Amino acid sequence: MRIDLNADAGESYGVWSLGQDQALLALVTSVNLACGFHAGDPLTIQRAVRTAKEKGVAVGAHPGFPDRLGFGRRQLDASPEEIYADVLYQIGALSAFVRAEELTLHHVKPHGALYIQATRLKETARAIASAVKDFDPTLPLVVLPNTVFEHEAQSAGLRTIAEAFPERGYTREGLLASRGTEGAVIHDPRLAAQRALQMVTKGLVESVDGSLVAVRADTLCIHGDNPAALAIAGAVREGLEASGIEIRTF
Amino acid sequence: MRIDLNADAGESYGVWSLGQDQALLALVTSVNLACGFHAGDPLTIQRAVRTAKEKGVAVGAHPGFPDRLGFGRRQLDASPEEIYADVLYQIGALSAFVRAEELTLHHVKPHGALYIQATRLKETARAIASAVKDFDPTLPLVVLPNTVFEHEAQSAGLRTIAEAFPERGYTREGLLASRGTEGAVIHDPRLAAQRALQMVTKGLVESVDGSLVAVRADTLCIHGDNPAALAIAGAVREGLEASGIEIRTF
Amino acid sequence: MRIDLNADAGESYGVWSLGQDQALLALVTSVNLACGFHAGDPLTIQRAVRTAKEKGVAVGAHPGFPDRLGFGRRQLDASPEEIYADVLYQIGALSAFVRAEELTLHHVKPHGALYIQATRLKETARAIASAVKDFDPTLPLVVLPNTVFEHEAQSAGLRTIAEAFPERGYTREGLLASRGTEGAVIHDPRLAAQRALQMVTKGLVESVDGSLVAVRADTLCIHGDNPAALAIAGAVREGLEASGIEIRTF
Amino acid sequence: MRIDLNADAGESYGVWSLGQDQALLALVTSVNLACGFHAGDPLTIQRAVRTAKEKGVAVGAHPGFPDRLGFGRRQLDASPEEIYADVLYQIGALSAFVRAEELTLHHVKPHGALYIQATRLKETARAIASAVKDFDPTLPLVVLPNTVFEHEAQSAGLRTIAEAFPERGYTREGLLASRGTEGAVIHDPRLAAQRALQMVTKGLVESVDGSLVAVRADTLCIHGDNPAALAIAGAVREGLEASGIEIRTF
Repeated sequence: MRIDLNADAGESYGVWSLGQDQALLALVTSVNLACGFHAGDPLTIQRAVRTAKEKGVAVGAHPGFPDRLGFGRRQLDASPEEIYADVLYQIGALSAFVRAEELTLHHVKPHGALYIQATRLKETARAIASAVKDFDPTLPLVVLPNTVFEHEAQSAGLRTIAEAFPERGYTREGLLASRGTEGAVIHDPRLAAQRALQMVTKGLVESVDGSLVAVRADTLCIHGDNPAALAIAGAVREGLEASGIEIRTF
Repeated sequence: MRIDLNADAGESYGVWSLGQDQALLALVTSVNLACGFHAGDPLTIQRAVRTAKEKGVAVGAHPGFPDRLGFGRRQLDASPEEIYADVLYQIGALSAFVRAEELTLHHVKPHGALYIQATRLKETARAIASAVKDFDPTLPLVVLPNTVFEHEAQSAGLRTIAEAFPERGYTREGLLASRGTEGAVIHDPRLAAQRALQMVTKGLVESVDGSLVAVRADTLCIHGDNPAALAIAGAVREGLEASGIEIRTF
Repeated sequence: MRIDLNADAGESYGVWSLGQDQALLALVTSVNLACGFHAGDPLTIQRAVRTAKEKGVAVGAHPGFPDRLGFGRRQLDASPEEIYADVLYQIGALSAFVRAEELTLHHVKPHGALYIQATRLKETARAIASAVKDFDPTLPLVVLPNTVFEHEAQSAGLRTIAEAFPERGYTREGLLASRGTEGAVIHDPRLAAQRALQMVTKGLVESVDGSLVAVRADTLCIHGDNPAALAIAGAVREGLEASGIEIRTF
Repeated sequence: MRIDLNADAGESYGVWSLGQDQALLALVTSVNLACGFHAGDPLTIQRAVRTAKEKGVAVGAHPGFPDRLGFGRRQLDASPEEIYADVLYQIGALSAFVRAEELTLHHVKPHGALYIQATRLKETARAIASAVKDFDPTLPLVVLPNTVFEHEAQSAGLRTIAEAFPERGYTREGLLASRGTEGAVIHDPRLAAQRALQMVTKGLVESVDGSLVAVRADTLCIHGDNPAALAIAGAVREGLEASGIEIRTF
């Protein structure tokens, strides 16, 4: 049994620092780097790729909406053509730094509102999948399982990586509970570690109303903006390893 | 005998249209596409790459300073590290569209104030050359001959393409006359065509004070923002072809 | 009987020119100037304010979403707090140029997706109205009548200016027909002029399904991006004046 | 005897936090707020104006070059016309928040590379002074004394506020020692406090080569990006008060 742990990084901008890339990248096996639209800038990307290289972490692109002020978290009514072109641009920009550091781009995972939109709108999912495919048809795309996003990515012939969230609450339908509702974010590292273990070994998670729901996970996401991010990442990793699960990227 | 004709394109932005890409790309053999920093945006880049593909024109990256409001024409005191990262980012972004259209990136030519700075500051020239080399050491770099830019690009092991300007005045030192001085811009298509022919066949150009100065040219640049751009491009091309010069990209 | 004619202007950006400000401002009595978020930049604003001054046209602020690439036409899920602050910022920026030219800011009219959102979402309407009120409680706000936008603006104690669109189709409910549906945009200047006259003199317009619906109009909007904009503005103005309607700002 | 203490604030951007506004504004008497070009955004400005109001600190505008990525610290070859319009725009935007909070805009102080350029280039100094004057001829402009900046501001009829820097080294010519040279930045709060006292009471400062040079000071600047900023601000304030100097804004 094995699992990947992923986190977002490279989210600083110019003089503005954000996140704890050095510490977080010591704990995960793959990283999603902001590409300059919602966060990141050329020098930040270079630095983040180098940090990932030092830590031996696989580097993925983390394209977002062109909304730096909103950190890519605000829904934007972009057309599928715009989304295709925005995603392709960002993957290309990031991949240049990956190439300059003699690494290989490992995967793509959309950010924030773009990711959420892709789980709901077929056209958005398809536009993202087309951009990835046109850049490199062998590049895996990280998706929320059982959504139109997964379906469209697979229809495009892409390899999909199913993602689960040990520190996020799930509804009884197996979807993420909305931020702001009770139990939507888990702050206790021990609880997150238990949920991670249950996700990986049993394919199950306890929902916000107490029922058990099925989850598929090729990778577990650790959010860097959770104040307990490092403690959670550490506890999740330790708990999995203690149970003999191999922590390795897909 | 042969020569390349190059022009800038893809300089629109969102709803704002600029240039006459369709008509200009029918006359030149290589094109420098804005990469989104001083001009261009993802959809504009996609459209421009497709236009170049239709016309059979070789596609190069045209990175500039991150100054959209100033169209990349204002000197910016960026550090060599920032310039390296900015250029690498832009080449990568543009190359994704080139790849998606199943073309190959053909060359790099910096834009505006970045180009001029590279002809004057060794550190700028070196930063640009390093970015090109780290992206792809076989990628040619278009330079102003007999400058630190050419020297640094060659020291980095890059293939350089010497550029001359049939519609621009030259000083007796063989440098471009400053815009705004007399004779700095040539508007007469016939005169531009004569100068182009002299540049290619004799390696000479008449300077603003009447003396003949040596120029080396692997490519001739046609500025799209000259109101007579299309007439000049047509006259230059016709004049060269009538003299048996082959118009073909490097 | 009197009516105001309004148009958008100042929509250029840097080297990118857009619109026909000189010609359009000779025909209308009030103008909505882009404030730098969806279009416009400091020099463009200065130039547009001066053009309005020359033509004797009343200057209003035209704040939009911070989405230059999308020209403020894409819905953005901004919070009411963000909308309040974005609108206040833009009104302030524009008003500085109005003040420097010794004019008085005359009104505010939101742009594009922000305007449409204000007609549908109470929170958006209220945020805009609060920003206008906190800047200057005597500043009129241009609204679509019979919407939450008008209602919230009036609840805030603002003077509202009801707007009608002679060149746009109306549904039988008295709302604007969606762009892209049949009859949504009127290109015939004579027809636009007839509709304008009917709006002003009878408070009626023929809807896309042929029924007559009531409209209230203190100002008629002429879109500059209609290819026939100048012809329409001219015909509307002439038709109204021929019927003895005074064309004067509110 | 009295003196003003000023600091920069409102330098966050979107999710990216910068500076220690709450603590710093408890120690100074006037504050220079970023206006959205090099730092700051509408919500950040609103928050900073409110913090200043709570602390009873006088609010000034801190316009900078349109270079967020470089935090306005990179020289940019903008024309005087562009600088005039950029400064006017920023003052207007900031003043809208000042007005909405029922305060009065107190002064203008340019930021970073724009400030430095104004001390060296007459055209830049004049453009800034014109923008301030056209916005409000009674608005004081903070300047480096004995420079073209002070001279041009006074020629425009503006009230100028001479600024000195207790935590920065001075050359024997009375100019600021370049960052990066020895003694250019002072980190010891006690030393900064002694220098502040000498500046205010004697109009003198010890230069980097040990000689005493004359300085004029209506306000002392405390940089928030000095890691010891709070300790320095506290020590300077305490030292001045202990010597009976009144700390009050101009």
